[in-house]
Amino acid sequence: MRAAIFRNGEIVVGTMPEPKPAAGQVLVKTLACGICGSDLHARKHARHMVELARHFPGRKPMDLARDVVFGHEFCCEIVDYGQDTQRKLKAGTRVCSLPALLTPEGPQGIGYSNDNIGGYAERMLLSEALLLEVPNGLAAEHAALTEPLAVGIHAVEKANVRGDEVPLVIGCGPVGLAVIAALKLKGLHPIVAADYSPARRALAEKLGADIVVDPAHAQPYATWAEHAAMSPEQKAARPPLQAWRPALKPALIFECVGIPGLIQQVFEGAPRDARVVVVGVCMETDRSEPTLGIVKELNVQYVLGYTPDEFAYSLRLIAEGQVDAASLVTATVGIDGVAAAFADLANPEAHTKIIVEPWR
Amino acid sequence: MRAAIFRNGEIVVGTMPEPKPAAGQVLVKTLACGICGSDLHARKHARHMVELARHFPGRKPMDLARDVVFGHEFCCEIVDYGQDTQRKLKAGTRVCSLPALLTPEGPQGIGYSNDNIGGYAERMLLSEALLLEVPNGLAAEHAALTEPLAVGIHAVEKANVRGDEVPLVIGCGPVGLAVIAALKLKGLHPIVAADYSPARRALAEKLGADIVVDPAHAQPYATWAEHAAMSPEQKAARPPLQAWRPALKPALIFECVGIPGLIQQVFEGAPRDARVVVVGVCMETDRSEPTLGIVKELNVQYVLGYTPDEFAYSLRLIAEGQVDAASLVTATVGIDGVAAAFADLANPEAHTKIIVEPWR
Repeated sequence: MRAAIFRNGEIVVGTMPEPKPAAGQVLVKTLACGICGSDLHARKHARHMVELARHFPGRKPMDLARDVVFGHEFCCEIVDYGQDTQRKLKAGTRVCSLPALLTPEGPQGIGYSNDNIGGYAERMLLSEALLLEVPNGLAAEHAALTEPLAVGIHAVEKANVRGDEVPLVIGCGPVGLAVIAALKLKGLHPIVAADYSPARRALAEKLGADIVVDPAHAQPYATWAEHAAMSPEQKAARPPLQAWRPALKPALIFECVGIPGLIQQVFEGAPRDARVVVVGVCMETDRSEPTLGIVKELNVQYVLGYTPDEFAYSLRLIAEGQVDAASLVTATVGIDGVAAAFADLANPEAHTKIIVEPWR
Repeated sequence: MRAAIFRNGEIVVGTMPEPKPAAGQVLVKTLACGICGSDLHARKHARHMVELARHFPGRKPMDLARDVVFGHEFCCEIVDYGQDTQRKLKAGTRVCSLPALLTPEGPQGIGYSNDNIGGYAERMLLSEALLLEVPNGLAAEHAALTEPLAVGIHAVEKANVRGDEVPLVIGCGPVGLAVIAALKLKGLHPIVAADYSPARRALAEKLGADIVVDPAHAQPYATWAEHAAMSPEQKAARPPLQAWRPALKPALIFECVGIPGLIQQVFEGAPRDARVVVVGVCMETDRSEPTLGIVKELNVQYVLGYTPDEFAYSLRLIAEGQVDAASLVTATVGIDGVAAAFADLANPEAHTKIIVEPWR
């Protein structure tokens, strides 16, 4: 079968053996698979990713001398079943799955693995126990957005929202947009969001941001503060020693950029007692001033991935039209177009989410 | 009056004008004042401390060209009152206060200020509204430990203890020891604590640590894991996708060292989902691998100081004998001994807390 393969640091088109479903597994045809920012990161920082894997005894790191097929945001169609399967869904059924294969050694990731082929190939293997049927005749390219939406749903869940916070979302790429959609579902207002790209700011508004900021023209934290003023009652209820502090509602900041220096930037801009959720995945060594976190008593919650429940919830949200996932898709390409798509995604004005359709 | 003065980066003995209590203020005689690790830091990193002050519009940074008197862990005796005071406590009453002066511009710190003299001087000024009478005839050198204990009480409060965590305290200087005392009061067991110094480990046990680790001989995180195994019931209750993970109780890690690289070390050693409380004040730029925090979904709570309630609670704990504060004091010195004490505190075997008695 054909696939877009990560080989020697580049994405190339090639062929590879047809996968065969083992016990408990399902052979599926990949209908649609989103290109994730982490795939772009992984191409650039593959060695660092491998090095980090040593912290996870259960996880098998990629061998960069061998081929890898990326792609972990997929929607597929059932083709065939392996042994020891219940086969409740018939062939042709459209399914999603969180990107993991259940193995006797525990779950193993799909998409950053030499063994488990990702969604940039014509066919792949899934674990029957993790299959979710795509409801409501939802289009495959929109069902494929379940995974990135789940990232936002999970980030907001990990924030333990109390209801009195004013959120600030830094970066409106797919991750930031998913966070905005999840915040809207929580009913938090106003949602303040910052991005240099006009196209991304327009999308942020479409998905639920109430105020969007261009950091080239306004300081996002200053704009946030303008919209986070306490009510006169809240102001009056503060203990005497706090009365001299700026009268601001609690800050809930989502770092959705993931490049070195960003966390330090948040530390500098954040108000006292802010809670910071780090959703952007910075794969390089970073430097920061811990004293800033200390004097402001910041709380930093690092997040990654999602739970199976959050993943299933995200699929339902898209299928029921509660999140306008379709607006994120800016292009679809075949296997031949993956390498160019990796390059095109560098321009936030042109693209947000490019969907690979390996059958094209 | 005489004082140990921070001048041109050194601690020197000198004289300075007698302070005069303004409205709402009280003139006190300093009976005892602890030397804090932050004072040692501040002597070394004063410029950085001044630079950080720009993040706090309300706080007046130190002018390093002028004299500063350090000392913010004090117990004093009332000498005289300024105007507009209620004078409920008579002259000679022993008092503590959190190290702040209430001014029309908001609270201003005592001890890192050109204007507000700290406890390494014969006399100082306090705000009447913040005075706490020392109960039970408690000795001044023990009442002076209220402040460092409050740091530990606050750190543990900010950790939002649920009761099922197994704590690990990294570093058993005065801050780590205060954290251990506060954890013991919360009833968390076992408390695991790590320090290279045998003397500090002995103190950690005295204050409530159940297991002490010498990092030169055993990996603190491995020792922690040995004592954090889930019960068979907890193990069985985990969701299927988590069943392959190490069956460990929640980790609550207190970083009480405060030097560059320590947070990264915690990130490397911490188990998945750990909550990390950063109590050690690292005053230098630090580097870390955010990816480690991300893949482990760590939560980092930076903390500083305490609330007025926590401060008052700490004084009661010492006065009622619930915390054996006396065991921390390893020496007392007069004003002439402060500079040497700063140097002596570098040896954790010899000293934990040195108390300055400026009247000597």
